[in-house]
Amino acid sequence: MANSGISLTVGVLSERDSHEHRVALDPSACGRLVHSEMAVLVESDCGLDAGFPDHAYEAAGATIATRSGVIADCDVLASLSFPPRAVTDQLVAGQTIIGLLDPLNSLDRVGPLAEQGLTLVALELLPRTLSRAQAMDALSSQSSAAGYRAAIVAAEKFGRYLPMMITASGTAIPAKVIVIGTGVAGLQAIATTKRLGAVVTGYDVREASRMEVESLGAKFLTSSVAAGTGEGGYARPMTTEEQSTQQQELAAALAAFDIIITTAKVPGRTPPLLVSAETLTTLKPGTVCVDLGASDKGGNVFGSIDGSTTTTTSGVVVVGAGNLAADLPASASQMYGKNITAVIEALAPMGAITIDPTDEIHASLVASHDGIVTNPVLRAAMKLEPLGSSEPLKAQAP
Amino acid sequence: MANSGISLTVGVLSERDSHEHRVALDPSACGRLVHSEMAVLVESDCGLDAGFPDHAYEAAGATIATRSGVIADCDVLASLSFPPRAVTDQLVAGQTIIGLLDPLNSLDRVGPLAEQGLTLVALELLPRTLSRAQAMDALSSQSSAAGYRAAIVAAEKFGRYLPMMITASGTAIPAKVIVIGTGVAGLQAIATTKRLGAVVTGYDVREASRMEVESLGAKFLTSSVAAGTGEGGYARPMTTEEQSTQQQELAAALAAFDIIITTAKVPGRTPPLLVSAETLTTLKPGTVCVDLGASDKGGNVFGSIDGSTTTTTSGVVVVGAGNLAADLPASASQMYGKNITAVIEALAPMGAITIDPTDEIHASLVASHDGIVTNPVLRAAMKLEPLGSSEPLKAQAP
Repeated sequence: MANSGISLTVGVLSERDSHEHRVALDPSACGRLVHSEMAVLVESDCGLDAGFPDHAYEAAGATIATRSGVIADCDVLASLSFPPRAVTDQLVAGQTIIGLLDPLNSLDRVGPLAEQGLTLVALELLPRTLSRAQAMDALSSQSSAAGYRAAIVAAEKFGRYLPMMITASGTAIPAKVIVIGTGVAGLQAIATTKRLGAVVTGYDVREASRMEVESLGAKFLTSSVAAGTGEGGYARPMTTEEQSTQQQELAAALAAFDIIITTAKVPGRTPPLLVSAETLTTLKPGTVCVDLGASDKGGNVFGSIDGSTTTTTSGVVVVGAGNLAADLPASASQMYGKNITAVIEALAPMGAITIDPTDEIHASLVASHDGIVTNPVLRAAMKLEPLGSSEPLKAQAP
Repeated sequence: MANSGISLTVGVLSERDSHEHRVALDPSACGRLVHSEMAVLVESDCGLDAGFPDHAYEAAGATIATRSGVIADCDVLASLSFPPRAVTDQLVAGQTIIGLLDPLNSLDRVGPLAEQGLTLVALELLPRTLSRAQAMDALSSQSSAAGYRAAIVAAEKFGRYLPMMITASGTAIPAKVIVIGTGVAGLQAIATTKRLGAVVTGYDVREASRMEVESLGAKFLTSSVAAGTGEGGYARPMTTEEQSTQQQELAAALAAFDIIITTAKVPGRTPPLLVSAETLTTLKPGTVCVDLGASDKGGNVFGSIDGSTTTTTSGVVVVGAGNLAADLPASASQMYGKNITAVIEALAPMGAITIDPTDEIHASLVASHDGIVTNPVLRAAMKLEPLGSSEPLKAQAP
């Protein structure tokens, strides 16, 4: 697969999901890889939905190829989500997939592909708190895009002005927005609805996020149940009793708002229900709920359908929006391309994928390598023995 | 039609156009009329699309009625656009219609309805520059809503962030927006895209609008052809040669922008083409054009279809958006309701419609009264003799 002088070939395919408009590498990311003496193979028209025509990739030094050509000739396949079986079936030992593979929800695929000899690099497994990991943080970059979009979509569905308007034809009061969950997506939704002139409240069970919310000029609302921050910066799961108290308090507060944006999503877990069927009936007609937690396992808002907008009998608009980053495809792809190239630079500093199991980033990011599932969290979830020191990972060149 | 103590009955119908979500009177406007001892009859469910259920109207003191009941029993029918023939056929001498009747484009209906004895009050005919007319200025209130929506729709269709983003995953540069035509709609589109963090330019052939544009923090761009301001504050029509120069200059500038919002609409005239077929091909893929001038007579952007979004073969998104105020139905209806009640207060200060031909506002606003077409502009367009002083308008009580 290596041409003369070329150390590594990176491939990109069209994402085939009809709701997916992003592409894993934008032309500028390809340019950076080419500059590092890598080759980039791009499936024809893969960037079209994101506004990147083939000639832009060619101008960046990438080569346009067929789908099967990319699959056969790449060392590393850059992907947004887990590639479909039709793709992985054609991959062979030594090839690498990098993407938001959501491995905890795809344990059935991780085992066989590890045995197939594929190196799987799952961006969700990144140790996000390390500062040198930040450029690789695709969950953050895509959450930021989703949070921005949530504000735009809410404004688009809402029948009133967000800002205050003082005109000869009367005064419009500003819209009242609450953003539930103030992680990366929530903070971006707060910032963008604030920009639009709404009166914004951020709600989180982690008291620690008060300062971030208030620094954006929003009010902070929290629960009398101090849940605090758990593993990986996410809220720690609450007891059933704590949850019930917190939900009752929140439900009582919601009727005062015009726009409700929910962002409670933890990789690999069912999203918590934050706006129940009963709470929906207490909201004013015309209230807009944008549910970033929407998924095929349910969402944060009762009855939300991922990818669809529905209206309740009492006139509340519910937007199921589990993958909003896909609707900001150019920016989201550019940021994602930056994340992917940072991962490639970290895993292949000398121009060849070289896994160093003593490197914290490598050890976390890499789900499988050299025939085995290597990530300890995945091994535990798959009920595999921990890897002992007697089984050191071999470094492997592609 | 008058109950005991009730001087005037105002009626509201559902707007039947599928693109129309507004209603001519919101509950708070009904409340103001009821407070002035008028009765309000509201067709059941007429405010549903705008988020105003029947019980909100009842709480404001209005009475819910059937469509035919409203038509039969109202003295004044408040409407957004010209009511359909099925409605006007049932109206009788002495009844009044107030709305954006666009009479210059409906001359064929104005004559017969005048003969039918209806009083037609067309909000487009308002002398907008009078300060006491401002609360009645529905063109302004609805243009403001349309301009705000244009910014929201542009952000919704655009694949990139509008604001600058500086993140660990790279820096996104702010979107470049140009707003062509800086009347009420244009200024609101400038203000809203500025709020969202875009870099905004306002373009107008009237040098006089420079200060307004610059005071919003946007750049001002104009033509070397100084067109200046014509009648009613609109740009004066240019000669063919001037137009050609101006269009070439503008076309050359447009390729630098990501979002183009056009707002050139003059009541009763075909909108000027500002973005030609050729210019469209010079724009970057992903560029969004929002055409507020779109109509069944054409728009400001080549190929725009009013009410639809299309994408050119080179990837430019064209939004035909001739009636965007309808998509902000709650706020737009509230402002429109304020305009309508101000007109009713002006025409019926003593609780009965009393036309005073010596009042500049009455003389302009009223298209027909007491069996004849009274407005001089309409009389000229219909090739009728000017009304001499020998034919004074009679004041008429309903």
